[in-house]
Amino acid sequence: MLSNESLHERLLDLGLSLPLPPQPRGKYTPAMADDGRLWVSGHTGRTAALPAQIGIVGRDVTVAAAQRSAQLATVNLLAAAAAVVPVDRLADVLMLRGYVRAVEEFVEHPTVIDAASEVLSHVFGGRGHARAAVGVASLPGGACVELEAVFALR
Amino acid sequence: MLSNESLHERLLDLGLSLPLPPQPRGKYTPAMADDGRLWVSGHTGRTAALPAQIGIVGRDVTVAAAQRSAQLATVNLLAAAAAVVPVDRLADVLMLRGYVRAVEEFVEHPTVIDAASEVLSHVFGGRGHARAAVGVASLPGGACVELEAVFALR
Amino acid sequence: MLSNESLHERLLDLGLSLPLPPQPRGKYTPAMADDGRLWVSGHTGRTAALPAQIGIVGRDVTVAAAQRSAQLATVNLLAAAAAVVPVDRLADVLMLRGYVRAVEEFVEHPTVIDAASEVLSHVFGGRGHARAAVGVASLPGGACVELEAVFALR
Repeated sequence: MLSNESLHERLLDLGLSLPLPPQPRGKYTPAMADDGRLWVSGHTGRTAALPAQIGIVGRDVTVAAAQRSAQLATVNLLAAAAAVVPVDRLADVLMLRGYVRAVEEFVEHPTVIDAASEVLSHVFGGRGHARAAVGVASLPGGACVELEAVFALR
Repeated sequence: MLSNESLHERLLDLGLSLPLPPQPRGKYTPAMADDGRLWVSGHTGRTAALPAQIGIVGRDVTVAAAQRSAQLATVNLLAAAAAVVPVDRLADVLMLRGYVRAVEEFVEHPTVIDAASEVLSHVFGGRGHARAAVGVASLPGGACVELEAVFALR
Repeated sequence: MLSNESLHERLLDLGLSLPLPPQPRGKYTPAMADDGRLWVSGHTGRTAALPAQIGIVGRDVTVAAAQRSAQLATVNLLAAAAAVVPVDRLADVLMLRGYVRAVEEFVEHPTVIDAASEVLSHVFGGRGHARAAVGVASLPGGACVELEAVFALR
């Protein structure tokens, strides 16, 4: 079972830390719980200190930079989840949806979103999750990656 | 608890009315209920009388016009939901997903989709919802905004 | 109730067969079950033998070819579902999400995704499902169509 301690430790294993949950940039909440699931809003890699990596993958942004952005968006997802429910209620990631802002020729969306899947798998002790990755024309604030997720709650 | 009366009144507060549920433009249903949730199909702002606002935000369509389209798409979502379950079963909006058809430089997706979030928050007595907003290349019928949602049912 | 036999027969009615579940192209699982739902990952029309139809609808790919790709992506969705739960547990399709990689002028997303809806409706004995169809800039591997779905489990 995930705990605050194990969440922090597992992120630290990957050189990551849990940020303050980012303030929503609009009239919505970071995450909504129903009886057994947690619906987490779309998050980019922006932090309290820094905007998200801005640009279009395949033109302004490299795959490696987009992967870094996907990692930061993942810790933002986790921070949003942890702000709404106790960490030990997070049982599983059911679905991860990754949007990559990319040129139309871009084909490596799975490589970018794998950076997020790796973080989630490590945090959840190797458990997998369903996933969709698509390429979009534009994203809020000009970010290169946005992630949303549905978690199972215990 | 939401009722037919309060739904109409709260929409009227915002100068909106509940339309007839728009006919799906394809081989699907406007909304599907499982035991505790209602999955509402993607809706644009088209009405029985008028097509949706057509065009690309940031080039053919202003942010204000896209917000108006988001409002109309929101009442369509609510009409689709109300056509499938009694209004008083709609307990909460869990997740709102907003697609904005926009030029690649567009960054104000949250401002557009806030117009939908404001309607939903007002209808549900100030309760929030999780949300994702992304920018897409094209939408059915050329619409500038499409919304889909998952509601919690009581 | 769906069975392995009826699933195969109903696909055969449409000239389709159930493929081997395609290997995920990344660090995720083809589908995740929670207590009452099955979350199926994004799938294109690629098979073990052949890549998905590659290209942009409205420029490189016709609507008919995109519909064929949507059919193949649908059998991949079903194969992924059947690899994770017994077929007779698949009660309904709750939500189908279809991404069409298309030029910005493209408006016929419903026509493309109807090819998927027809397969699902036939397999599930005429039952409908909620659906969203949107147009995206790019997709993994350059595919022209990607589908994801949430099924209700019994």
